[in-house]
Amino acid sequence: MNLSRHSADADLRARARRVIPGGMWGHQSVARIPADYPQFFSRGQGCRLWDADGREYIDFMCAWGPMVLGYGDPDVEAAAEAQRRRGNGLNGPTERLVELAELMVETVPHADWAMFQKNGADATTTCVVIARAATERRKVLVARGAYHGAVPWCTPYPIGATAEDRVHVVPYDYNDVASLTAAVESVRGDLAGVIVSAFKHDYGKHHEMPTPAFAQAARALCDTNGAALIVDDVRAGFRLHIGGSWELVGIRPDLAAWSKAIANGRALAAVTGNDRFREGAAKIFVTGSFWTEAVPMAAAIATIGKLRATDGIGQMRRMGERLRDGLARQAAAHGVRIRQSGPPQMPVVFFDDDPERKKGWFFCTEALKRGVYLHAAHTMFLSAAHGEADIDQALQATDAAMAEVARQFG
Amino acid sequence: MNLSRHSADADLRARARRVIPGGMWGHQSVARIPADYPQFFSRGQGCRLWDADGREYIDFMCAWGPMVLGYGDPDVEAAAEAQRRRGNGLNGPTERLVELAELMVETVPHADWAMFQKNGADATTTCVVIARAATERRKVLVARGAYHGAVPWCTPYPIGATAEDRVHVVPYDYNDVASLTAAVESVRGDLAGVIVSAFKHDYGKHHEMPTPAFAQAARALCDTNGAALIVDDVRAGFRLHIGGSWELVGIRPDLAAWSKAIANGRALAAVTGNDRFREGAAKIFVTGSFWTEAVPMAAAIATIGKLRATDGIGQMRRMGERLRDGLARQAAAHGVRIRQSGPPQMPVVFFDDDPERKKGWFFCTEALKRGVYLHAAHTMFLSAAHGEADIDQALQATDAAMAEVARQFG
Repeated sequence: MNLSRHSADADLRARARRVIPGGMWGHQSVARIPADYPQFFSRGQGCRLWDADGREYIDFMCAWGPMVLGYGDPDVEAAAEAQRRRGNGLNGPTERLVELAELMVETVPHADWAMFQKNGADATTTCVVIARAATERRKVLVARGAYHGAVPWCTPYPIGATAEDRVHVVPYDYNDVASLTAAVESVRGDLAGVIVSAFKHDYGKHHEMPTPAFAQAARALCDTNGAALIVDDVRAGFRLHIGGSWELVGIRPDLAAWSKAIANGRALAAVTGNDRFREGAAKIFVTGSFWTEAVPMAAAIATIGKLRATDGIGQMRRMGERLRDGLARQAAAHGVRIRQSGPPQMPVVFFDDDPERKKGWFFCTEALKRGVYLHAAHTMFLSAAHGEADIDQALQATDAAMAEVARQFG
Repeated sequence: MNLSRHSADADLRARARRVIPGGMWGHQSVARIPADYPQFFSRGQGCRLWDADGREYIDFMCAWGPMVLGYGDPDVEAAAEAQRRRGNGLNGPTERLVELAELMVETVPHADWAMFQKNGADATTTCVVIARAATERRKVLVARGAYHGAVPWCTPYPIGATAEDRVHVVPYDYNDVASLTAAVESVRGDLAGVIVSAFKHDYGKHHEMPTPAFAQAARALCDTNGAALIVDDVRAGFRLHIGGSWELVGIRPDLAAWSKAIANGRALAAVTGNDRFREGAAKIFVTGSFWTEAVPMAAAIATIGKLRATDGIGQMRRMGERLRDGLARQAAAHGVRIRQSGPPQMPVVFFDDDPERKKGWFFCTEALKRGVYLHAAHTMFLSAAHGEADIDQALQATDAAMAEVARQFG
């Protein structure tokens, strides 16, 4: 394998450094991960992608979540292509908007209505605006360490934000009923809403599903205080439960934010809500030039339909379990201690005694060299395009990578 | 013409009211414009679009700006389709990102670098974040009545926003040097930037190009105070001047926000900046799941290339002048007094003595019945797909509509 720096990737990085600040922005920048990771990609198909130098990987990042049925899924692409020939952005929406809103209402038990945007942060921000408009209050409770977007009120790195951008954001600890209760009490009378991630999937941390006690407390506290319970399902939506991730704990939010996987990789986000928040949602003014694009909506209708028809979520879960079981066996066989967490279709894998994540990135880099794209700190993603043969091929690579970890770190 | 309420549009509106708050959100809602305007569309081709009932219109809204070369432009669609077959959203950007950033730097004189987003508001917000990060100051000057997006810090209808969201936004009056100077002095020592629209295109108001005195004062005040001059070219970019709208007044901003027309209708936005703000841009954290989608970038490369190769902007300007001249002749012939303003390719047409815009919407509705889609209050848009025959056909409709205005309002 040619990992020489005289590569297409290296050439593109050099060109990018001249015309893009820092060479790349945001979560897709590889500036802070090992140098062997490619910055640029050329192609995707099914659960595989190819970097700018033509190297093929079995992909466990799925474009950081949006790819849920496979890159270039033929059914989604056919629906999108048919809509593209008719039109995408016009002077108003197309029938696809109504069909998709109806489909969301039919699919998502808490939803009486839906609205659509482009970014996940558009959806989370719109939920907050609706909660404030409906309650005429200001405070929004946000879990410490949670990611709800990279806009001033919630970005984890608030460089260029002002203190006032987050003056009405009040922290609590996820899955900690006492902490949530105390936060609610601290703002009593001014509580607009409580925002919770689908599960605790903070960067670089073990992942935790919501406990029933926490979910029930969040629901009860919002009910008691007339505030909105907002589930941020941007990262997890359409992977854990087709009706929304908190269906797994039996708690229904008032508002939910969706994006990433909704259209199998095309830019689309959604807010769903119940009738208690319909009037608040109707009186706000949120909009964007591209929010009624019909092609991503056609893709979303096809994506959701196919996930439902084929038990795509079950497939992802089973393949995630197959990967998890394999990694556990390999770690044991090589005498390496790891801890796996998160739902099987959205795993993280951390090595014990690895505070600087040296083992983690070493393992991932060894897997990468063998054609498997993993991430050592962020939530990974399975898709419905991952089959048993793909997982088993990936496990061959991770077995060798695990052996290298054992050799290197003892 | 069948304007019966037993129409596809009426059926879709009824379905939408059940599953979308208020039936539709934002600027594309027809709730506050005449009932004859269709809410739903089915198809676009060149400078024409078709509503959900199959009625054809010569379009002067161009999807509210994004359509600049014609709906379904074959060159843009071919470039987008070729990229779609390779990949759109992957684990990182494709070569298209570098090509597009290089093209922006080559095309836009003030630009030393570029970054990309999805919404116009992503771009304006990113400019503000960069200005604050670079200057380590807080205040941003925004013209009264200007539109920079529908997010809390700048939405014209701040329902659901808090006072703190805009506590560091300081108003001034566009094209008023004394007002701008006073605003700068009011925040001296804490001035991060001054944001100016490409020209004054406030909703429902006569449009004004920036005066040279205003543009020079804005530049000088930013220079003197070490602040960022930010041009919001979201609405006007790629229609007035390929290098950015303020090239027309010979003033170069530090940062500019672009969106709408950049990819002929696909969701994409951009920030360009000079080297003084490169470091600030590199140290902020802004990102989105779909910001590196390759298909809209391929469309943008094709759009900008075709606009340059074909003098698309000149074509729009000439066709806008042909429309403007025709409307002026018709108004004079029918004894109706109108005032036209804005650059020819982005016009508004207002009737004298029409404070409630009754004449304006009556005229537009009469034109709509005759197959011409106009707007009585918002900036309209020409495209490079508008030809002389289209303008002349539209003018036949507007002549009859103008006659109806004369008959109705005397």
